[in-house]
Amino acid sequence: MSKKTDLILTNAIVLTMDKLLNQYDPGAVVIKDDTIIDAGFSIDIENKYTAKTIFDCKGRVLMPGLINTHTHIPMTLLRGLADDLRLEVWLLGYIMPVEREYVSKEFVKLGTKIGCAELIRTGITCFNDMYYFEEVVAKTTAEIGLRAICSQTVLKFPTPDAHSYEESIELTRGLIERYKNHPLIIPAVAPHAAYTCPPEILKACTDLAVENDIPLHIHISETAEEVENMRKQEGMPVVPYVKKQGLFKAKTIAAHCVHIDEGEMHTLEHSGVGVAHNPSSNLKLASGLAPVKRMLELGLNVGIGTDGTASNNDLDFFEEIRLATFLAKGTSGDPTAVPAVKTLEMATRIGAEALHIGNITGSIEKGKRADLITIDLSTLHNSPHFRHNINGIYSQIVYASKSTDVNDVMVNGKWLMNDKAIPGLDEEDLIKQSQEYAKEIDIFIQKREKSVISKLIAIGGTTEEESFEVQAKVSIKNPIPIIEKIESGELEIIRTRHYHEYDIYFNFAEEEDGNLRFREDHFIEEDGTVSHVRSRLTLIGPSREHQYPQKDVLLSRSRYLAPAGQSLRFYKEYFKPTGEIEIEKDRMRYLVNYEGEKFFINIDELIKPKLGYFLEIKARTWSQIDAEEKSDLIINLIEYLGVSAEEKITKDYLEIVGR
Amino acid sequence: MSKKTDLILTNAIVLTMDKLLNQYDPGAVVIKDDTIIDAGFSIDIENKYTAKTIFDCKGRVLMPGLINTHTHIPMTLLRGLADDLRLEVWLLGYIMPVEREYVSKEFVKLGTKIGCAELIRTGITCFNDMYYFEEVVAKTTAEIGLRAICSQTVLKFPTPDAHSYEESIELTRGLIERYKNHPLIIPAVAPHAAYTCPPEILKACTDLAVENDIPLHIHISETAEEVENMRKQEGMPVVPYVKKQGLFKAKTIAAHCVHIDEGEMHTLEHSGVGVAHNPSSNLKLASGLAPVKRMLELGLNVGIGTDGTASNNDLDFFEEIRLATFLAKGTSGDPTAVPAVKTLEMATRIGAEALHIGNITGSIEKGKRADLITIDLSTLHNSPHFRHNINGIYSQIVYASKSTDVNDVMVNGKWLMNDKAIPGLDEEDLIKQSQEYAKEIDIFIQKREKSVISKLIAIGGTTEEESFEVQAKVSIKNPIPIIEKIESGELEIIRTRHYHEYDIYFNFAEEEDGNLRFREDHFIEEDGTVSHVRSRLTLIGPSREHQYPQKDVLLSRSRYLAPAGQSLRFYKEYFKPTGEIEIEKDRMRYLVNYEGEKFFINIDELIKPKLGYFLEIKARTWSQIDAEEKSDLIINLIEYLGVSAEEKITKDYLEIVGR
Repeated sequence: MSKKTDLILTNAIVLTMDKLLNQYDPGAVVIKDDTIIDAGFSIDIENKYTAKTIFDCKGRVLMPGLINTHTHIPMTLLRGLADDLRLEVWLLGYIMPVEREYVSKEFVKLGTKIGCAELIRTGITCFNDMYYFEEVVAKTTAEIGLRAICSQTVLKFPTPDAHSYEESIELTRGLIERYKNHPLIIPAVAPHAAYTCPPEILKACTDLAVENDIPLHIHISETAEEVENMRKQEGMPVVPYVKKQGLFKAKTIAAHCVHIDEGEMHTLEHSGVGVAHNPSSNLKLASGLAPVKRMLELGLNVGIGTDGTASNNDLDFFEEIRLATFLAKGTSGDPTAVPAVKTLEMATRIGAEALHIGNITGSIEKGKRADLITIDLSTLHNSPHFRHNINGIYSQIVYASKSTDVNDVMVNGKWLMNDKAIPGLDEEDLIKQSQEYAKEIDIFIQKREKSVISKLIAIGGTTEEESFEVQAKVSIKNPIPIIEKIESGELEIIRTRHYHEYDIYFNFAEEEDGNLRFREDHFIEEDGTVSHVRSRLTLIGPSREHQYPQKDVLLSRSRYLAPAGQSLRFYKEYFKPTGEIEIEKDRMRYLVNYEGEKFFINIDELIKPKLGYFLEIKARTWSQIDAEEKSDLIINLIEYLGVSAEEKITKDYLEIVGR
Repeated sequence: MSKKTDLILTNAIVLTMDKLLNQYDPGAVVIKDDTIIDAGFSIDIENKYTAKTIFDCKGRVLMPGLINTHTHIPMTLLRGLADDLRLEVWLLGYIMPVEREYVSKEFVKLGTKIGCAELIRTGITCFNDMYYFEEVVAKTTAEIGLRAICSQTVLKFPTPDAHSYEESIELTRGLIERYKNHPLIIPAVAPHAAYTCPPEILKACTDLAVENDIPLHIHISETAEEVENMRKQEGMPVVPYVKKQGLFKAKTIAAHCVHIDEGEMHTLEHSGVGVAHNPSSNLKLASGLAPVKRMLELGLNVGIGTDGTASNNDLDFFEEIRLATFLAKGTSGDPTAVPAVKTLEMATRIGAEALHIGNITGSIEKGKRADLITIDLSTLHNSPHFRHNINGIYSQIVYASKSTDVNDVMVNGKWLMNDKAIPGLDEEDLIKQSQEYAKEIDIFIQKREKSVISKLIAIGGTTEEESFEVQAKVSIKNPIPIIEKIESGELEIIRTRHYHEYDIYFNFAEEEDGNLRFREDHFIEEDGTVSHVRSRLTLIGPSREHQYPQKDVLLSRSRYLAPAGQSLRFYKEYFKPTGEIEIEKDRMRYLVNYEGEKFFINIDELIKPKLGYFLEIKARTWSQIDAEEKSDLIINLIEYLGVSAEEKITKDYLEIVGR
């Protein structure tokens, strides 16, 4: 007697993508509620079951939905914002300014909707996201009906959704609380990368992930520069560094892994880390070529990702799959490397395993959720097809078919797309809304294009990302006792420098342009001679980040720096300032260790204009708590140096000299 | 007063792709007969002209049609025949046997139709083809209405359409005669490659091209092996070699140019050679990564090609364009390399220049043919779009849009596709017909899969491509006078070898499997000791190519060779022969120069079975005329050695010993 069930999908070429790569043609899949309960040849299934609904797949391929293992889905709204640029120009000149200005809950909601529509059309049933306001991503995705790992970004800079990393951790806790047992959404935490997250942040994220048994999503070794810097700073590449921080105690998903060596691959494998390979992003940003062939040989779970649409510039997963196999062949010189069937496993079952959700999705197997797609291979660009080889069908999907061949998409037993129609989303309206954003951003950028920062970037790029510092300044009568105190041996002096500094500040009509400083640093040796001269351009923004009123300590963004290879005359002609202010000073600069933290102490004599001596203390910071602690230490250090901290000045010299 | 014309296409984003990259939005293009007579902003054009027909582009992009600079269009019928294989296995094991069996005029006609339908759908208005029966390609393409350079293949092996290169040259002459002044078809000659065309063939092709002022289309430096072999044989890489042969006197189009150095790039540039870059083919076959960024910097005209569908496995030109820019960035480490706009120039104007037809197509300019496409950028995967940068539109087309966004295609002033419909082709029927071929080929391959050749390939690949040799054999009584004659000093001896050869011939039930020979060559030194042993497998096909009856000289295909790294026992178990024949012989082998040609002279003593002495003379050949000339020389050489050539034997030793 036949069993009763909800739904049978039949008359399909069923590619289970299970470990044995079982195929049934013509085949059928049996679904009850949200779960696959059987699969086999149509004739057997139809004898065994009766169903409320029989769905005729009309000879199409029926296979598990595709798994996008790394993306930033709301960035779909920034598709094509800026292209063909160096990473820092793209990031500092375009993405970050626009994100700061526009990324809100509303932005994230719309971006997620457009992104999800594109994901559905390319046959993706599950994606691993990383962005800001991740709870909005989760809510929107759940409403649309896709499966997702939603990872809340945490990093040391203020973000569109948090002033400090502590706030981001709190956002993640909220996300976990509300989505812990959701049928579609898996909450996760995303420390952005080792270079943007100090050990404290990595630890806080790991603890949160382990405590709640959720995935941890991070960028690892995307660029050669990232690895080089890590080697310089920590004497090791990125994988051993984050392992040392305990990161791999969490169920880790490592995006990119472009620049990793054999030992690091072993470490990732032993630690059960899933890898997200992003072929088109790595190519377009010229990040490098990931050792995918070798990672697979070592048994690593390597899935495929689109990365964000702002860098890529689409979510076409068929393109990513094809590129994954093409690149593995092209870079290894071996045309048999990573064959079509293996790539399709990466895009399905292995991808799900990389995300640590191989138990619920990624293949057509009894007990897994019904996350399924059909692909129409009857089109001209798929013709003819050969069937003399069991792997021919995988070849056809990977090398010839297109995302526009995806016909139907089901997630968790529910249809999201049928015959290329997505009833749950008004795509016309989404396109219209997205275009309204784009128009606003176009105006914002066009205005900015006329700005100093853009011109600065245009002539050679900035060399330093934004960072934050706390600082305080006190006018002093006599520097000698302070210098004696510093050099007394009580303080650990890490470095001493003596400069003669000649600054020209360019003023501009628009206050938001801030000021551009052209500085010549003359390095003074002990015998008073000048050993060398360094010229730099620094753009000082118009706004202060925060001022701690009770302490008169200023929290400021550090500025964009660029080496000044041209003459002062060039910069005057190029930037056309409306005015100039000249400041000349003598600076003794100490880098000291005080109470376990690093501080810069400047003893400045303002020569032009003649304003006398100043004591200035500065420290880099990366979180609100850290900033407050360092502010206290700065006050203490001023007083330790025998100076009254009561009349601190929170202004820059430029502000003291006046416009 | 406004001028009268045939057709105005208006309300479009007109991307002219001319050298100044003029854009008109909203813009219009004016067409009279087959020619573009004007382009500009819609408002200006509509004031200036009246037309029989006004075509509303509805805000779509209107740009020149795309130029596919290298393909083998009839091979679309072999799409996905075999993938993820080493080149020689793919070529010898699959493509060549199937081509030998199936490629006919009818095959080429159907393959061209399917290929053209796919080309139109991906926005290509002109392609540069290279295949057999090229006149059928020309006729079919002209009927469909696409523009094409049709290059007839010439090489040293017999092909599906010619027994010798002389026949191929004759076919090309016919093609030229019938298509010399055709409005759509440009006839061309295609010496396949330097490694498949001896100097005589290269010269014959160049002369033909120069004499008729037609393009010459050739594969150059596709693989590292090709270049390595050329260096070994000729002491130089491929570009200087073919230049030395005078090739560049013709209007040359060089496909691939993957492995070329800086000097070769300069040579190509100075010689006005156009380059066809085939990114996905180069990746999929792991041929290597072409130095596209550098070639463009040096001012070379580098176009983009799909290569044949059998290797690639589609004609999606949007994929090729995207890959061209991705690869240039990814391999140079420079994300600003080959930006979107440059790639789109490669795909249009520069591509046409690479094909030496920049005067008639490739951009929207007055006087050029009306080869145009529209692209619909209003879809979800194209949303939003930013317009703050004039290059944003190129970015959008290259990085986000898909071939399925192509809406209309016009060639030579005639619409081939409107609103994605191609009235001139019954695509349903083409799909059906192609599937009938595929089914037949599936059966052919499945039968072959059980064959010895496939099994031979499966265990390690063959190491030698097919070649042809002429040979004759005479039974002799006494070898001494012959050896004395050879060694008398009159003949130039290039090399002498002394072998003791132990052969095991495997027989198989199916005659078409031929025989598989396991040979141990013992190299005998002058003192009679064995210096080393070499083991090889040789598959000897069942068929003879040709026998010259008047001379009893056999023209035979040389055999597939593979090094035999395994034991005889392994091969017996693996191939399961139905019987075995053992032959043991002593062989003195001379490579001599006789009348300016190279010949192998074997003095064989058959030891097992005891059959006495034989004189055997062999020579490699590559054309019918050459074979006939060498047959005459073989007869002369036998008689020169003092042996009567009257009782020549045209059988292999295996045939003499008998099955």
